[in-house]
Amino acid sequence: MTKIAIALDAMGGDHGPKVIVPAALMVLQEYPELCLILVGDQTELQRELSAHHAKENERLIIQHASEQVAMDESPSQALRNKKDSSMRVAINMVKAGKAQACVSAGNTGALMAIARFVLKTLPGIDRPAILAKLPTMLPDNPVRVLDLGANVDSSPEHLFQFAVMGAVLAEAVDNIHAPKVGLLNIGEEEIKGNETVKRTAQLLADNTFVNYTGYVEGNVIFQGKVDVVVCDGFVGNVALKASEGVAKMVASYMKQAFRKNWLTKVIGLCALPILKQLGRKIDVDRYNGASLLGLRGIVIKSHGGANTKAFSNAIREAINEVNKNVPERISSKLDELLGEEAA
Amino acid sequence: MTKIAIALDAMGGDHGPKVIVPAALMVLQEYPELCLILVGDQTELQRELSAHHAKENERLIIQHASEQVAMDESPSQALRNKKDSSMRVAINMVKAGKAQACVSAGNTGALMAIARFVLKTLPGIDRPAILAKLPTMLPDNPVRVLDLGANVDSSPEHLFQFAVMGAVLAEAVDNIHAPKVGLLNIGEEEIKGNETVKRTAQLLADNTFVNYTGYVEGNVIFQGKVDVVVCDGFVGNVALKASEGVAKMVASYMKQAFRKNWLTKVIGLCALPILKQLGRKIDVDRYNGASLLGLRGIVIKSHGGANTKAFSNAIREAINEVNKNVPERISSKLDELLGEEAA
Repeated sequence: MTKIAIALDAMGGDHGPKVIVPAALMVLQEYPELCLILVGDQTELQRELSAHHAKENERLIIQHASEQVAMDESPSQALRNKKDSSMRVAINMVKAGKAQACVSAGNTGALMAIARFVLKTLPGIDRPAILAKLPTMLPDNPVRVLDLGANVDSSPEHLFQFAVMGAVLAEAVDNIHAPKVGLLNIGEEEIKGNETVKRTAQLLADNTFVNYTGYVEGNVIFQGKVDVVVCDGFVGNVALKASEGVAKMVASYMKQAFRKNWLTKVIGLCALPILKQLGRKIDVDRYNGASLLGLRGIVIKSHGGANTKAFSNAIREAINEVNKNVPERISSKLDELLGEEAA
Repeated sequence: MTKIAIALDAMGGDHGPKVIVPAALMVLQEYPELCLILVGDQTELQRELSAHHAKENERLIIQHASEQVAMDESPSQALRNKKDSSMRVAINMVKAGKAQACVSAGNTGALMAIARFVLKTLPGIDRPAILAKLPTMLPDNPVRVLDLGANVDSSPEHLFQFAVMGAVLAEAVDNIHAPKVGLLNIGEEEIKGNETVKRTAQLLADNTFVNYTGYVEGNVIFQGKVDVVVCDGFVGNVALKASEGVAKMVASYMKQAFRKNWLTKVIGLCALPILKQLGRKIDVDRYNGASLLGLRGIVIKSHGGANTKAFSNAIREAINEVNKNVPERISSKLDELLGEEAA
């Protein structure tokens, strides 16, 4: 690894520095060439470092920022009024070339609005999209889904751009050759779906840059058959959250069932290591760190409620994207595409 | 219960008469005033009845139909070419007043197209919608979600009509007073969502007929906080199938975890009754039987892969809707609404 610096919005998320500082310390041990910049309230960050018997050094720098974007603040308000927020300052550092990536667990809408305003989109990209990696039935084949809520009412051209970005990420970061790209629809037959989906399918079928494999239904997301699933941000966000909701419901009923009486409790105790192992397999923490793709810079969004382990994975995702030059690769793929169209 | 007759598309679904005939026999034992009409191939149905030591009688009638709609047939083809299909004949019986409802496990698109063509929509309803009941974290509070795929690109007016129909069903069939209706969105804040959702929210907020409680996110569907969730058919279908996909993935990993070695197998065997009980709580079979709402007649769609127990629940749903006069109730609610608008 060449020397890289990553700016962390250290005040973001439900837990702020209490989670982000120990996550930073954990990841620094793994990557000797890494420098992390903790952006946020200097006093609070120093106190948190002390609590972990750590202090500032050349690889762990505090960059003071006097404000914070609230989790429920409107993106436009955050963009206008919070010029010295930890989120804004962290993104500014990417713009200024002082950091090669930024990681935040803060307000998604504000992060997207500020990142787009400060960094701008890549040439050929109309709108950035949010991509997350999700587990599937095949443990070695996670799936990348985009967009998960950066846009609503995406046009076929936007969805096509999402497909290109998703494929580039899968190829660059996860070394998948010619990643299989599916388009989310309500049936696998050609006649199904709305006009946007049908026109997107045409664009994808006609191109030679994306390995488009056809429509996929909601349940197919988790089967591990495709590497990338493309959809509008409204649909993707609902599907993601509905999936989380079902997983929580199953877990809640399971807890109840094992707590019913002393016998079920004993059995539950015996089954606990097995269930924990199961939990690790479909571990959302492992996949924490969604990518804001299509920007002139790398921005990673951590889940707001992330714990130390989960946030550390978001930092690792940022490191991977820096090492693989994701924005440059998307940009050069788009150049090829535009060149072909012009020819 | 007054005497009622229900037509069953006995050839529909993945298993046809092998599932539908025993399900019919099961439900007939529970309702002494019920008459079921098995619509389909006479020879095959008689053979299936014999296999269950049963035969035609005044409460179990065979209505011959020479054709079948294939599960992958296009709705328009089925509508044009399959005039003597078991599905079409069953719906015709509702139209002719020979049956008060029809139940089919066949091709959803074809069922919707034929039902709409034969029965027509209720006055004031532009488009029918598919509603299904789903389990939530609160065992006594299932949630009704519509539309699940009958429509794509629904307008705010359509979504408003879905809200009215869902509320009427929850009140009539499940005796919920002033059922809470939520609108599916990608955030709970007023500023979030696409234009259609925002305008629908306005229509719902302005009305006094539906107990509208605001936006709900995908995960909230399964929390049991609202009785009805309204959404466009594209979004609803993707959310439902994504949820099924996650549930299957969890079950698959759980099986693997318990099969790992002899010790985990022994623990799995002990835990089996508990896990089965858990399965019953979030039992999709229990909720089998989606309603095609907004038609001048009752049509229930069973899951294509339904087993006997699941299909019998779809028949029970039909009986409930007949007993509660669901189409008439929707119609009279719409009359009130139109009356208020005119006043």
